[in-house]
Formats: sequence, structure tokens, C-alpha cells
Amino acid sequence: MATILIIGTGKSSVYLIEYLILTTEKKNRNLILADISKEIAEKKCSGNPRTTAIAIDLENRENRHSAIKDADVVISMLPAFLHPIIAKDCLELGKHFFTASYESEELRKMSDEIKAKNLLFLNECGLDPGIDHMSAMKIIDSEKAKGHEILSFKSYTGGVLTPESEDNPWKYKFTWNPRNVVLAGQGVSRFIRNGRYKYIPYHMLFRRLETISFDEVGDFDGYPNRDSLSYRKIYGLESIPTLLRGTLRRAGFCQSWDVFVQLGMTDDSFKMDLPEGFTARMFVNSFLPYQEETSVELKIKELLPWVTDEIVEKITWLGLFDDTALPILKGSPAAILQVLLEAKWALIPEDKDMIVMQHLFEVKTASGIKKITSSLVSRGGNQDYTAMAKTVGLPLAIAVDLFLDGKIKSRGLQIPITPEIYLPILESLEKENIIFQEKIESI
Amino acid sequence: MATILIIGTGKSSVYLIEYLILTTEKKNRNLILADISKEIAEKKCSGNPRTTAIAIDLENRENRHSAIKDADVVISMLPAFLHPIIAKDCLELGKHFFTASYESEELRKMSDEIKAKNLLFLNECGLDPGIDHMSAMKIIDSEKAKGHEILSFKSYTGGVLTPESEDNPWKYKFTWNPRNVVLAGQGVSRFIRNGRYKYIPYHMLFRRLETISFDEVGDFDGYPNRDSLSYRKIYGLESIPTLLRGTLRRAGFCQSWDVFVQLGMTDDSFKMDLPEGFTARMFVNSFLPYQEETSVELKIKELLPWVTDEIVEKITWLGLFDDTALPILKGSPAAILQVLLEAKWALIPEDKDMIVMQHLFEVKTASGIKKITSSLVSRGGNQDYTAMAKTVGLPLAIAVDLFLDGKIKSRGLQIPITPEIYLPILESLEKENIIFQEKIESI
Repeated sequence: MATILIIGTGKSSVYLIEYLILTTEKKNRNLILADISKEIAEKKCSGNPRTTAIAIDLENRENRHSAIKDADVVISMLPAFLHPIIAKDCLELGKHFFTASYESEELRKMSDEIKAKNLLFLNECGLDPGIDHMSAMKIIDSEKAKGHEILSFKSYTGGVLTPESEDNPWKYKFTWNPRNVVLAGQGVSRFIRNGRYKYIPYHMLFRRLETISFDEVGDFDGYPNRDSLSYRKIYGLESIPTLLRGTLRRAGFCQSWDVFVQLGMTDDSFKMDLPEGFTARMFVNSFLPYQEETSVELKIKELLPWVTDEIVEKITWLGLFDDTALPILKGSPAAILQVLLEAKWALIPEDKDMIVMQHLFEVKTASGIKKITSSLVSRGGNQDYTAMAKTVGLPLAIAVDLFLDGKIKSRGLQIPITPEIYLPILESLEKENIIFQEKIESI
Repeated sequence: MATILIIGTGKSSVYLIEYLILTTEKKNRNLILADISKEIAEKKCSGNPRTTAIAIDLENRENRHSAIKDADVVISMLPAFLHPIIAKDCLELGKHFFTASYESEELRKMSDEIKAKNLLFLNECGLDPGIDHMSAMKIIDSEKAKGHEILSFKSYTGGVLTPESEDNPWKYKFTWNPRNVVLAGQGVSRFIRNGRYKYIPYHMLFRRLETISFDEVGDFDGYPNRDSLSYRKIYGLESIPTLLRGTLRRAGFCQSWDVFVQLGMTDDSFKMDLPEGFTARMFVNSFLPYQEETSVELKIKELLPWVTDEIVEKITWLGLFDDTALPILKGSPAAILQVLLEAKWALIPEDKDMIVMQHLFEVKTASGIKKITSSLVSRGGNQDYTAMAKTVGLPLAIAVDLFLDGKIKSRGLQIPITPEIYLPILESLEKENIIFQEKIESI
């Protein structure tokens, strides 16, 4: 009899929990749901007799250990910076450990010990990272097996709205962590194109776009995301001439968002401390040159000559030119902007989110170069059953299920890039209607 | 008999040391020159019988203490991050402490203890910070004493070349720490103008310029530098509508420099690891979009439409479009750019540096608004006797001299903003030909 512990039972754990609850009876498993608030965890038990809720105090080592010691497998759905703490506990207590987050440097330091203890620590097993790795590796391994050479691989993912819910000029609302959306792209994006290294600073990112099209749901802006160069090794594509991983937003979003980036309104590196009565309009104006006779709107167009009337209207719609007092006066520009955006980009009950992912391959075969386009569109059911929760939670749930069934035998620190892991997970995901559509063209 | 210890006897200490050596005999003082290398320190003793050279091992507490215990006053000319270590030693051993660097948070934490021990820790007593504070405060205090209201205060400083030495298209060479020049302006610049808070992100800084003119040496670009807002309190100008501190470069420099900023070539946040044979031209190209048929030069002009042929020529002159291998392959973009620039912006023996500083005040008097422009131009003698070493070192030397003469009675953690400190220092600086020219106009 195996016991699974899930730490963090918030919004994004719904599919994860429900999938694993369904396996408890049939497979003789127990499930423990741990959250800071026992109440939150209790609601997720759905009256299942083999599922129990507990409160966990993350700052208390003894308390964490008393929760973890009863489990065989621990799934951490906590914010990423907390993973190393739980991972360390698992290592000490000899428990397997699963997350949907990036493998961190701290985890890498534990790598030898994880292996020595014959444990599996599987990270990056959610959506992005997760489904992106698995679906890409399936194509990469299959093309390599045919003796084909992969010349180019670009992979884009986005968390957006379903077209029906795009009812504002931005065609955007917060379908996931607003702070991460506001800060998205910060740092330097790195990739390789036709053998040329490319580095894009944050302030150039939202104008270095590629249009990514989905038959079903139209066009999106794709922009490079973080360090794609490191994936050459991970994907076994050490000498590939073109490799780029990126993020998707609805077409047109990025150019408008770039106004905030250019003005410095997404800066999170310093705290403003604004006087009482400071308005949204004054906030925008504080990033613009002083010109007594010129309106804020006009100053934006003078400073950023590519700004169209349509973009100004989008910013107007957000209330950023209003003479209304700011809801917060202390915080980074990004934090203040976030509060203003949250008021306008909040989901209404009917809104549905959507995940879009597309891999674009160019592959050299004996008969020429073919282009493989593999696309995923996953629509949310409602605001509890979101596409984000589904695509993040199900791969993780399936991985744990397969592991406990003895179908994943890998041990050590892993991400889902080996066929033993990605093949059965992708197969199970298809049954859950997470299906890639593949198109092949010759070029 | 007093003993002065100077730690750090490199290039920028020459005026400081010579000024204090001259006081030894007359004022019955000893001078100890400490450096990592005793040899460097020895050269600076100039055979003066009351000056001795010692080696100091900064990582060895005992060694530091054995040097400091013999002194009454310690002057640290070390890189700024080392000051807190020396300051702590001085606090323990009950020694007075002087620097030309910004008062740091670590120093502020020692403030109560410094006062309790009746010591003087005087920081920001060089050029900028230093002479800027002193010369500004003299005007501010004098105008306030007349019952006038200061409406606007802008203060700009630059370390540049004398016009005769401006013999390249950039009219610039490294006259001080190249790394600091490459990174200059990073972070967010903050100031207030006509009661409006203004925040400029780094990538906008080099286009938010003001022309600052000197009768004697022509026009310069002035751009805002760091957090000017905090100086409202320091200068006793809490309710001033306009306050801005900035940096000067020769007119035209900033727009060309902005190309590097826009492309991300001054980024110091990540390390590149480039393959063998990577050239300067490939380095520039790595920050540009991939377009097979377009030259690097043309791509710059397409990405940054304001780039003129003249700017492209300046970059060409630097060798950045050359197919020559990079001298270093690992390092941040800023570090690699610095190495390339150092090859071109090196001083030749005849070159002379120059310090330019200008304060611009608008003052409300009973008879209207007057504009006070106070300008300093200080030219270096040669590459040993630079204007930078002179304007950084002399205020510090004079401050220590006055302090040991009992003419500065302040104690505690101080910067030179009180008349007791700034008046006699400015008076002595005039004798050394560091003289502000004041112009008053009605507006």
C-alpha cells in the first residue's frame, strides 16, 4: 500500500488531486493533502475515504517531517523557491519527490545523493516545463531513429484566453499568476539561429516577435523566453543550428505591452514611495519626460514613435490615464502596475482559459527537408477546471501513478526526456484529451 | 604628534599623499602609506623622512589592526566595497576614518557607535561625491540665509578629456575606471521636476539628455544619475520642486553610446561563453536579429532607426565590425565590450583628463527669479597628475589637515554638508586652483 503526499492544494492542484483520488481505491493507495490551511486541503478530499487532509507548517522542520515520513511519494505544488526545502526533507527521509517546476541548482547539488539512495526526483513534469519536453522529445527521438537530422527546433507555449473570452481590447486577462505575467521575459533571452548565437535584452524582447498560427484558434505573437541555449544539451541536439523556446501571447499584445516595458513600468528592482493622492495618470507620467504643455498620451507617442492610436486606446481602457488615486503607493513599478491591471484583467465567471503550444521542426531527410508543426490547444472548462491546472497537474499525476505502478523505473534526478517516462505519460494525456495535432510539409 | 594612515596608494592617491606629506614637518605629523604591495607605497614616500611605507594584507584582521593601531586618522582609498571592513577596524580601535566614497548602509549601521566613541567618520569628501556637495551647500545655505527660496537645483559632473585630447570620433577615452564607465547609469534614475516625480529606466537614460554648456570648454550631454530624490533631505531642500543630479559626457557621446545600451552590449547580468574564433563583428551581430541577407551595420540602422551614418562610423572606428577574434570569450557582454573599448580608448602619454562640474539653480528672491550657474573646469597636468586624482584627493587631504588642526570639530558619521566642514575646504581648494565660476542672470 503506497501513500502519496501532495503539499500545496490550491487552485492549480485540482486536476492533480482528482486524478490521484481516482486511483486510491483501485490501486490500494492513500492520499494525504497538505496545505498551510487544513480547511483548503479538506475541501479537496471530496469525501474520499482514502484521502486525508492535514495542515503543514512549512517553517517547522519537525512538522514537515511528520507529514513526509508517512508518504512514499511527495508532490510539491508549492511556489518554486520552496521546493529545495521539501526536496531536502525527502532526501533525508528517503522519499521520492515530484514537481512541475524547473530543476534548480539546489536540486542539482543533491543529485549524487538522490541516486545513491535509489530515489526518483522528477522535476519539470507539468506543462512548460513538462508537456513541452515530452512532446518535443518524442518527435526528436523518432526523427533521430529514422536517421534524420534536426536542423531547427522552435517551441512556443502560452497561457491565454479562449477566443470567446477575449472580450477586451487587449484580448487578455490574468489566467495565471499576475506577478509572473508582469515580470515575464525579464533577464536576457538567449537562443541560436542558423548557427548564430542571439541575445536579446529585456527592453528589446517585445519587438523581436514571430507570428505563430494555429488552424483552430488563429495567430499569436511568439517571443524568445530565457536561456534556450542550455536545451541543446538537454534535448541531445548539441550541434543543432536553430533552437529557440518562447512564449505566446495573442497577436498584437506584445507591441502594446512593450509600452510598459519601454517606460520602465514593469521594473521590479526598486521601490517607489509615492505621496498621498498620486493617481494612475501621474504614475504613467512619472516615466515620461517633463513637458508642461504636452499631455501624457502625446508624450508617449513622442517618446515611442511606433505607438498607434489603437495602443493608446488600449492603455486608456486600462484606466492608466485616469485621475483616480492609486490603490497602492509603495512598491516597485511592476507591483503597482500589477494592481492596476488586476482590476481590469480579472476573469469573469464565464471566462475560460486556454493553453496553446506549438513545436516547429525542420528536419533533413534523404528526400529533402520537411517541416513538422505539432500543435496543442487545450481549453479550460471553467474557472475551477482551468486548462492551466489541467496541463500542469495531469502530467504530474500520471507520472506518479505510473511510478507507483512500477512502469517508470528511472531513479536519480530526472526530467521527463527519456522514452520510458514521456511515452506512457503522453499516451495517458491523450486519453485526457491533451492531444497534439501534427502537420508535415516539405520545404 | 599625529599619525595619518593612507590605505591604497595607487594612481588616484597622488595629490592626497603629496598634500599631506607637505604638512608632516611643519605640523609635526607622521604619514604611513599602506598598500597591498609595499613597493607601490614606497615610491610614493618621495624620500620624506616622516613618511613610511608598509604592506597591508586586507584579508588578515591582525595585519590590518597592526597598521591601524599606530594611526590617529585613517584614509581609505580602497575600492568602495572594502571601506566597511576598514571602518569597522577603525571603530574597534578608536580611529577617525575618511573616504571619498558614498556613505554606505553598513557605515550607517555604525553611526551610533561612531558618535558614542567621539570619532569622526567623514565620507563623500572627494569630487562627486564631495566637491559637488560642498560647492552646492555653500550656495544653498547662502541663498537660504538671504531668505530666498530655491526652486530648482540641477548638478552635473563628468570626468572627460581636455578638448586638445579629444582626437578620436568619440571625443572620449577612459580617464577613470573603465568598468564603471561601461556600467554607468545602470539601475533606475530618479529625480523630481516641477513637483513631478520622474523615473528613467536604464534603456531610456541616454536619450533623456540636457545640454550643459561651459563658456570655456563647450557643450556636454547631461543625463540623470541614480537617486536624486534622496538628496532633498540631505541638502535640506525637502520641498524643492526640481532636483536632479547627473553625469556629463561630451555632446554627442550619449546618442552613440545608446546603441550599445539598446543592443544589450552593456549588460553585466549574465556570462557569455562564446566559441573559439568568435569575432568582434559576430559579438555585435549576436545582439541583432537574424537576417541572412542584411549586413550587421544595416541591421543596426533597421532596429534603431535613429542611428546615423556618423554613429555607424564611430562604432566602425572602435573595430566592432571587424572580423578579428575577440580577446576574451567568457564574460558578461559588458566585460567583453570593455576589453574591446580599452584597446581603442586608451590614453596616450600626451593626453590630459578634465573634470567638469556645473550647478544650475533657480532662486526666488524679492525682486524676481534669478538663475545661478556655478561651473568648475579642472584640467589634468599629465597622466600622473590627473584632474581626477586632484579633485578626488585634495578635498580629502584638506579635510584631514583641517581636522588635525582642530578646525573641524564635528564628530560622528558625516558628509561635508555643514559650513564648518565645507567652507574651509572650499577655501583651501581655491588656493589649489579648484575654483567655481559663478554667473547670475535674472529670468
